[in-house]
Amino acid sequence: MSALPAAPAGPPAEEPIGVAVVGAGYWGPNLVRNFQGSPSFRLHWLCDLDRSQAERVLGGYSTVAVTDDLAEVLADPRVGAVAVATPAGTHLDVAAAALRAGKHVLVEKPLAATYADGRELAGEADARGLTLMCDHTYCYTPAVLRIRELVRGGDLGEVQFLDSVRINLGLVQRDIDVMWDLAPHDLSILDFVLPDGVRPVAVAAHGADAIGAGRSCVAYLTLRLSNGGLAHIHVNWLSPVKVRTTIIGGSKRTLVWDDLNPAQRLSVFDRGVDVAAPEELGADERQQMLISYRSGDMVAPALPEREALRTMVEEFATAIRSGRPALTDGRSGLRVLAVLEAASRSLAEGGVMIELGEDDR
Amino acid sequence: MSALPAAPAGPPAEEPIGVAVVGAGYWGPNLVRNFQGSPSFRLHWLCDLDRSQAERVLGGYSTVAVTDDLAEVLADPRVGAVAVATPAGTHLDVAAAALRAGKHVLVEKPLAATYADGRELAGEADARGLTLMCDHTYCYTPAVLRIRELVRGGDLGEVQFLDSVRINLGLVQRDIDVMWDLAPHDLSILDFVLPDGVRPVAVAAHGADAIGAGRSCVAYLTLRLSNGGLAHIHVNWLSPVKVRTTIIGGSKRTLVWDDLNPAQRLSVFDRGVDVAAPEELGADERQQMLISYRSGDMVAPALPEREALRTMVEEFATAIRSGRPALTDGRSGLRVLAVLEAASRSLAEGGVMIELGEDDR
Amino acid sequence: MSALPAAPAGPPAEEPIGVAVVGAGYWGPNLVRNFQGSPSFRLHWLCDLDRSQAERVLGGYSTVAVTDDLAEVLADPRVGAVAVATPAGTHLDVAAAALRAGKHVLVEKPLAATYADGRELAGEADARGLTLMCDHTYCYTPAVLRIRELVRGGDLGEVQFLDSVRINLGLVQRDIDVMWDLAPHDLSILDFVLPDGVRPVAVAAHGADAIGAGRSCVAYLTLRLSNGGLAHIHVNWLSPVKVRTTIIGGSKRTLVWDDLNPAQRLSVFDRGVDVAAPEELGADERQQMLISYRSGDMVAPALPEREALRTMVEEFATAIRSGRPALTDGRSGLRVLAVLEAASRSLAEGGVMIELGEDDR
Amino acid sequence: MSALPAAPAGPPAEEPIGVAVVGAGYWGPNLVRNFQGSPSFRLHWLCDLDRSQAERVLGGYSTVAVTDDLAEVLADPRVGAVAVATPAGTHLDVAAAALRAGKHVLVEKPLAATYADGRELAGEADARGLTLMCDHTYCYTPAVLRIRELVRGGDLGEVQFLDSVRINLGLVQRDIDVMWDLAPHDLSILDFVLPDGVRPVAVAAHGADAIGAGRSCVAYLTLRLSNGGLAHIHVNWLSPVKVRTTIIGGSKRTLVWDDLNPAQRLSVFDRGVDVAAPEELGADERQQMLISYRSGDMVAPALPEREALRTMVEEFATAIRSGRPALTDGRSGLRVLAVLEAASRSLAEGGVMIELGEDDR
Repeated sequence: MSALPAAPAGPPAEEPIGVAVVGAGYWGPNLVRNFQGSPSFRLHWLCDLDRSQAERVLGGYSTVAVTDDLAEVLADPRVGAVAVATPAGTHLDVAAAALRAGKHVLVEKPLAATYADGRELAGEADARGLTLMCDHTYCYTPAVLRIRELVRGGDLGEVQFLDSVRINLGLVQRDIDVMWDLAPHDLSILDFVLPDGVRPVAVAAHGADAIGAGRSCVAYLTLRLSNGGLAHIHVNWLSPVKVRTTIIGGSKRTLVWDDLNPAQRLSVFDRGVDVAAPEELGADERQQMLISYRSGDMVAPALPEREALRTMVEEFATAIRSGRPALTDGRSGLRVLAVLEAASRSLAEGGVMIELGEDDR
Repeated sequence: MSALPAAPAGPPAEEPIGVAVVGAGYWGPNLVRNFQGSPSFRLHWLCDLDRSQAERVLGGYSTVAVTDDLAEVLADPRVGAVAVATPAGTHLDVAAAALRAGKHVLVEKPLAATYADGRELAGEADARGLTLMCDHTYCYTPAVLRIRELVRGGDLGEVQFLDSVRINLGLVQRDIDVMWDLAPHDLSILDFVLPDGVRPVAVAAHGADAIGAGRSCVAYLTLRLSNGGLAHIHVNWLSPVKVRTTIIGGSKRTLVWDDLNPAQRLSVFDRGVDVAAPEELGADERQQMLISYRSGDMVAPALPEREALRTMVEEFATAIRSGRPALTDGRSGLRVLAVLEAASRSLAEGGVMIELGEDDR
Repeated sequence: MSALPAAPAGPPAEEPIGVAVVGAGYWGPNLVRNFQGSPSFRLHWLCDLDRSQAERVLGGYSTVAVTDDLAEVLADPRVGAVAVATPAGTHLDVAAAALRAGKHVLVEKPLAATYADGRELAGEADARGLTLMCDHTYCYTPAVLRIRELVRGGDLGEVQFLDSVRINLGLVQRDIDVMWDLAPHDLSILDFVLPDGVRPVAVAAHGADAIGAGRSCVAYLTLRLSNGGLAHIHVNWLSPVKVRTTIIGGSKRTLVWDDLNPAQRLSVFDRGVDVAAPEELGADERQQMLISYRSGDMVAPALPEREALRTMVEEFATAIRSGRPALTDGRSGLRVLAVLEAASRSLAEGGVMIELGEDDR
Repeated sequence: MSALPAAPAGPPAEEPIGVAVVGAGYWGPNLVRNFQGSPSFRLHWLCDLDRSQAERVLGGYSTVAVTDDLAEVLADPRVGAVAVATPAGTHLDVAAAALRAGKHVLVEKPLAATYADGRELAGEADARGLTLMCDHTYCYTPAVLRIRELVRGGDLGEVQFLDSVRINLGLVQRDIDVMWDLAPHDLSILDFVLPDGVRPVAVAAHGADAIGAGRSCVAYLTLRLSNGGLAHIHVNWLSPVKVRTTIIGGSKRTLVWDDLNPAQRLSVFDRGVDVAAPEELGADERQQMLISYRSGDMVAPALPEREALRTMVEEFATAIRSGRPALTDGRSGLRVLAVLEAASRSLAEGGVMIELGEDDR
């Protein structure tokens, strides 16, 4: 490994951070638009192996430069940060090159194609004191930010179960299955909202290649949490109806997040089941257990209207400037990769429960 | 075993079948109401160990007789059929006694507390040439009857996946877990609508006793089908929102049954993903596969308004009179029990996939 | 008018009130079921000109007597109260006969076919000290009872507007238009929930006989309220979709009642528009007006599950026993008739606004 | 009036039309984005009296020129078309100036502040042979384009009623009431989808200034159609819930357009009421009328995903190039203004029905 270039000194708050976007495919244009809209950044480059694709994305009225040469971008001293929106298989190469060039890096999810690759990136960033952030966009929606507050702030009580459904008629990917395509959203949200000390400890996965596409198009993940709770994720490319609903059940309250209902994305129910087992009874004396039901009001908190990507982009700027880890830093990207790899093993082994290593919790 | 009484000769179509309901708890009143409303039956008795409960159910204006003595009911020659709505643990005793007394028997789901018990009942009914029917009520809803037509009639093409969610803030049962309480609905529907030759061949189950109730309150079942398809069932007593939605994905069409949307219970989508793998290519040559998407119209078929229990009661009469097996006969009840027992084993063994025996498919 | 019989002495609270239902058509069976279920009443008769219809309603297991002779019912000294569920055109005759026989009377909506008829009934009841109650069933739903509390208790602030939509593919009535068929529900609810002192003062109506049925099948009513507010009602027999939604906008909060959403019938929004016109400005100085928007949380209050008719029946008993007017007494029925008659006049005169008399507010 | 400049010769299809957007407020940015995205146009200018606002809209990466001088824009020979997105009160001045300069003109709704102004614009355009188009955006949504096909193609049969609800917590405008703010959408859609020969012939309006804003914040419009049908529009700035639903009832089918349900915007019901009056009977013999109910399937047609503004922009190009009137040309804008002015008169006169002039139908 070559000598580390010095990390760029944090620019004064008033001066925008020079940034380049690498990858002009599905996600890149969203990054382009949001970096352009942010006063914290100045977008200098859009880089893609296919120059004409990059030109199409920028349209006929833009002053942003196009290139197909990553080296040209990395050599530009105005560029302090690079956003990587290339296929997952190239994340390691592109992001590592950027880090080695002393650039802060934002990577589209998943952080890398493998856990090992991701760990290499995280190590590279740490060694150089650079910001490595994973673009777990959903974490920056007003709904998920509020869920994080509610769960970590104790409003729900102890988390008992989480059930997430993310199904749609989706594009069948050529290189990854539905689990790697969609579950990173749910896993990163889970990672983001769970309170400190509550982590997934094991995962099992079932899937089916229902249409003969050569990879699972329907998958179910079941995660054991360290506090005894259960999380379950249903991802599906074949559903003609779109559902994006997460239920988080707590000992005090239960919330429902319906991302497709803009008028009421979040509902917090003071409704549930309490079990009061008299102290003196043994676990077997089920007949004596006292179950009570709460059927209180439901509150749908008002949420601000704000594009998640805009908030994410500002978090990237803040992390760069302050030097603190981003809310969805490389480590959170790694934890998601650890679950995905274990889930793939479970899938291959017929659905057995795979324990997660200590490091990945 | 005593000598078999002769099976009662089928009464002439015009004469109602004398019937008794045993069990005046949660479900019994529904049977009472529907037998009273049917011209095919004449309700003579409501029998419950708690006479005053039976009297409350009948109310102050009824001519139906009450008793706490099953023997009195079984000895009544006017009674040709007995409907059993007692706790599952008593099904074997009550139903077997009725069969031995030469009565046709309808049993509330599940058929019995164990597969062995259920097989005993089925054998008893077969030996005596009596009708044994399981009250899988949902199968007789207009929606499920139509789903059966669509699936078995080929409108959906090959069944690729089935996903069923049945969650609610439900009563935590004292004797059974959420899987035994709710999944029989989904399993009996699955059994009812799948085409001949497509059966579950293995099942895995995950669950959690999230509230310390001594039994699972949240459970997920994954079933492998004999045609390579996947079925998944989510049952949950702890959800503050009620969901009862089943998606059945086929190679031609996909249907969504939302039982809580009376205005549009059934939606049939001509929408999906087709994979056309050129003949000459090997499975590895994924890059060459041709995927096409259909995004056709959705049709919500008009469904008649008819109470499922009424239809079920008439099927019971028809089965008795014709001697043919009921649509949900004892065998279907047995197949559901086989899956439930295997799922319980899987739950106890941490979610491993349990193969179902040949007989139970 | 013959000499008044003495009003029956209120029976002791523990003894049920003898009751007869007159009319075994669409609504009568519901009254039969609810009187049978109430400990406050003892149902003695179901009376209908078509005896066989009455017998069908009672079914084959009932001890309630059937008759086609109203005089027989009115002569029965056990009968203290009569519930009238006959066509509106016969309400005057049947109810007046019952009152003259000294019976308390419950009348299905509308109170009578005309305002004049209704006033005669109300006068008759007053003169004899008998309870006259109008079965405005919706007023006794848990949702409307809560709305009444919220509106009259001041939680909404000043009522600014009310918008009610009640549309469905409905039975085209032979004798009345859609306004007389459906709007009584909305008008009785309006009457029930508005605070004292806020009343409708004028009404305009538009309608269309879209299908050539000889009467309006679609109608819109606009009511001016005494506090300057506006109420609007849309009733429609021709809509393939069913909507039953009422919005009540207040200066502090606004509520939405969606009667077809059992999971969330009532939503109370702390959301709205405030105008703060600086004191010193004239009305013309619009540019200076300060408008602020509240976008607070929404609360969906938990509502009990209780059949409205059961509550209504108990209110009838309480009114009889206590001598106080029922919540929906004859006067409320009269106020609804006053609006309906004015709306019919407006309809006939092309939609002009018709003032309501002082007495009818 | 000065000598007419020659209408610009239609440019060859392959060459984009030079365009300028005037007005960088609420709507202008959407036009900027869509002209930039269209190969049919080349955007040269964004003009606003507030230059800095125009600069903010374009952002820091644009090559489009900014000016606050309309004359500079109109003098630019590259500019063949001008899009006007200024306040309605300035439409006459800006658009007339553009027409006089020989430019084709697109005007944001409403066409002008008054019917007289609008007529002047239409006359100016006609006299010069220039395209005058009104940006009735909703007409170009995939849903409304399909509705137009269904209604005009006869799939619905005769149009019997139309009911449109457009309510939300909306910005209280300083210069116009809710009717002028929101009803142009519904009126332009009505104008767009009705078959030739079916036109509004009279309108009545009721409204309320519920919050003391100095103008109606809630309004209801009732329109009589020339075929005897009825159209009704509810617009409201004060509703905490957003509703955008239109029902169009026809003699054969009825459609429901729910613009807030992206998964099922359009539902076409083969459901309704038929009246078969035997030939030999008079209109009075209501008892003989035969009413039958259809309760057929519902079909939700698949709709393409396409931004309405993009389609509108292409229609503008096509109208310019072909010389044919745009689908929403100046005449359609005029017809909408005629209804709005009559509705305002009705509102001022307490809701009386105002006939529309022959010219405005």
